[in-house]
Amino acid sequence: MQEFADAGSDTPLRIGVAGLGNVGATLVRILQKDGVELTRKLGRQIVVTAVAARSRSRDRGVDISGLEWFDDPVALAKSDRIDLFVELIGGEDGPAYAAVKAALEIGRPVVTANKALLAKHGVALAKVAEEAGTQLGFEAAVAGGIPVIKTLREGLGSASIERVYGIMNGTCNYILTRMGEEGISFAECLKDAQELGYAEADPTFDVEGFDTAHKLAILATLCFGYEIAPDRIHVEGITRISQADIKVAADLGYKIKLLGIAQRSDGGIEQRVHPTLVPKGSAIAGVDGVMNAVALETDHVHELLLAGPGAGGPPTASSVLSDILDIARGTKVPPLGVSSAELLPYKQAPMRAHEGGYYIRLNAKDVPGALAAIATRMAERSISIESVIQRPDLHVTDPAGEGMRTRTVVLLTQDTLEADVRESLALIADDGFIVGEPQLIRIETL
Amino acid sequence: MQEFADAGSDTPLRIGVAGLGNVGATLVRILQKDGVELTRKLGRQIVVTAVAARSRSRDRGVDISGLEWFDDPVALAKSDRIDLFVELIGGEDGPAYAAVKAALEIGRPVVTANKALLAKHGVALAKVAEEAGTQLGFEAAVAGGIPVIKTLREGLGSASIERVYGIMNGTCNYILTRMGEEGISFAECLKDAQELGYAEADPTFDVEGFDTAHKLAILATLCFGYEIAPDRIHVEGITRISQADIKVAADLGYKIKLLGIAQRSDGGIEQRVHPTLVPKGSAIAGVDGVMNAVALETDHVHELLLAGPGAGGPPTASSVLSDILDIARGTKVPPLGVSSAELLPYKQAPMRAHEGGYYIRLNAKDVPGALAAIATRMAERSISIESVIQRPDLHVTDPAGEGMRTRTVVLLTQDTLEADVRESLALIADDGFIVGEPQLIRIETL
Repeated sequence: MQEFADAGSDTPLRIGVAGLGNVGATLVRILQKDGVELTRKLGRQIVVTAVAARSRSRDRGVDISGLEWFDDPVALAKSDRIDLFVELIGGEDGPAYAAVKAALEIGRPVVTANKALLAKHGVALAKVAEEAGTQLGFEAAVAGGIPVIKTLREGLGSASIERVYGIMNGTCNYILTRMGEEGISFAECLKDAQELGYAEADPTFDVEGFDTAHKLAILATLCFGYEIAPDRIHVEGITRISQADIKVAADLGYKIKLLGIAQRSDGGIEQRVHPTLVPKGSAIAGVDGVMNAVALETDHVHELLLAGPGAGGPPTASSVLSDILDIARGTKVPPLGVSSAELLPYKQAPMRAHEGGYYIRLNAKDVPGALAAIATRMAERSISIESVIQRPDLHVTDPAGEGMRTRTVVLLTQDTLEADVRESLALIADDGFIVGEPQLIRIETL
Repeated sequence: MQEFADAGSDTPLRIGVAGLGNVGATLVRILQKDGVELTRKLGRQIVVTAVAARSRSRDRGVDISGLEWFDDPVALAKSDRIDLFVELIGGEDGPAYAAVKAALEIGRPVVTANKALLAKHGVALAKVAEEAGTQLGFEAAVAGGIPVIKTLREGLGSASIERVYGIMNGTCNYILTRMGEEGISFAECLKDAQELGYAEADPTFDVEGFDTAHKLAILATLCFGYEIAPDRIHVEGITRISQADIKVAADLGYKIKLLGIAQRSDGGIEQRVHPTLVPKGSAIAGVDGVMNAVALETDHVHELLLAGPGAGGPPTASSVLSDILDIARGTKVPPLGVSSAELLPYKQAPMRAHEGGYYIRLNAKDVPGALAAIATRMAERSISIESVIQRPDLHVTDPAGEGMRTRTVVLLTQDTLEADVRESLALIADDGFIVGEPQLIRIETL
């Protein structure tokens, strides 16, 4: 790979791009448009010479007539007529995985925006890259246009990270922002998001928090040096967030955001994705709409917040390009920050051991003693109540469809062990003073 | 410099540190503490072998007994017993400049946290570094612990920056935050900041905006490729911000922040430092206390916000270390993003040509027709008024000490040319309906 180190080289860096969706087409367009400027900045020419995609004829608003065409991305990845392979096909297995692996195995640098691939095969692919002495860039795989991977790999010196958290899914943040600003329901916001192209026809992966979990798992590995474990994260989505939750949170000085959070704890690494009450004044609370943000808490730098667009063609293509430029400059860093051989086996801290404040919304039966019974159960687990809100306007008509009159009660606890909160809620349910599932939202001190 | 490119080298990278103040001592401590961990991450040992400072005996809470001592930083910079020179002396000229220049001239990489030096000699020093084929790192010179220089040099692909703005002075942000939260005066907050060590005994450089201007000038060069021009920036400090301004701004949904802003305009580059009304909900409005933040607006990535600690030993030392690690890895980038030979001569856009919304606070004489006369003058310059506030609680008693009864009037304009605003205010003053200097604060749409 020595020739890559020579940024002043006269030979152009030949790029092969597999996958010509929004990001791929944008990348080709940028390189065609800014080629001269980049050559000036880099002292070396960067040209897309070959592409692979499903349909050759489809109009993508970019001229690919001059480029060599491959039907098979693996053949492109292996072609000796490219110097760097860009994977923008997507999917955790199949052609994306085969092509990336094939390129790395012959020592060819790879840049990908594929978070699912990284979450599932990241450690194995990093190992292949290290053994072949080549580079694997994936800045675009987490938080689209935000250079968080570069910051984690190169920007923090020897600072040790205590906690990483962020808004990493634009669909959820858009929905929660609309719900807060316009007082409309989750369902309505989701419908709008789908019409605007911010949400998939099947939104499950986004709104249930799995997309955020994938990204969090990749970040956590870069932060803490543990193996990637996307399937061992406590995940809750935003589908149960109601207008009542948004309203009460606002009155109490909070916004509700879907956060992915990973932090060191005695039990190992605490990785969780769930709706979170964040203080209105905080910087992350100001990150609205489709914007993403990642916050890093380190021993040296205290807190660092990076906010920007989490998706979209141009931002994502821009991150792909920054990886390409780093490789062209000869930058050499282990893909996962440390050598894959040194990654520690993932140790998940039990969620029951999580300690923090809780927002609890209950439909209490409209009978004497209900509130007293609830408060007593909390007291038994020595849970301190920060505030109690019971307002007529939050009243939900017959939540369980049993013709039962109820009152909505919201409790905010002080720092409490999750196990205690869950147990007391179970007992409260057994007592028969509440109707339906209690709403439990964690409060994060930022 | 080839040996630097070899991150796997067995020979340790020998660091010489000139200046053992807070940052310098912290850097030495970090390298002594985390040396092993860094060697593991980097595959190469990094050791501080020599230091230079004023007093050899002073207790800095770090053991320098094993290190070679230099009384003369220039001698240290040139010593063949170090491989990399770190300048933490400070000052735009004198020993700092001499030592950095001396090291670069013999092809020795330099890392500095010295913004004044960069603002004044940055272009010349970058030229020396380029000619000698070595590196000049200054991540810590702008916004302490925030990796904004790396992001600008390496993180944005070919994205073209349209506007950069930020909170780059912790002293001012601390004072404005306290004024907003506690309703106390500028003078009181400044006194507290001085007692807490957040402000110098002579705070002029900070509170008058000059420190922000230095940092903005460096950022603007990296953003737009013009020569650094710290002395050709429109600069206004925060000393004239009153509680009335903070209160009215809050009621209208704004916070007041001291921003440094640079943007492309027809006239060239618009560089300005001034108190600014920013929307309460915006991410930058959530950046409070001594925190700093830099926002980059690009064509590809839209907006990117980086927020974190702007000063302090550990964050600043951490940024210095990240530069050292980049050099140890062999990362090669022109210090100013592009070769110094390609920098364009700075062309300042006239402030009169600035267009935006304005907050205007006037002490109108308590006589019939005053408001009418003011409104008429505005109308003559076809300035559209967004809102008018006149409240008894804002009333200032005898502002000019002439026993004159006045009423405080606040006007918010829609987007207007600065020249028109200034001319209409001059005419309003001539009409004799106001007392004292009008307060003019620009509104930034973020």
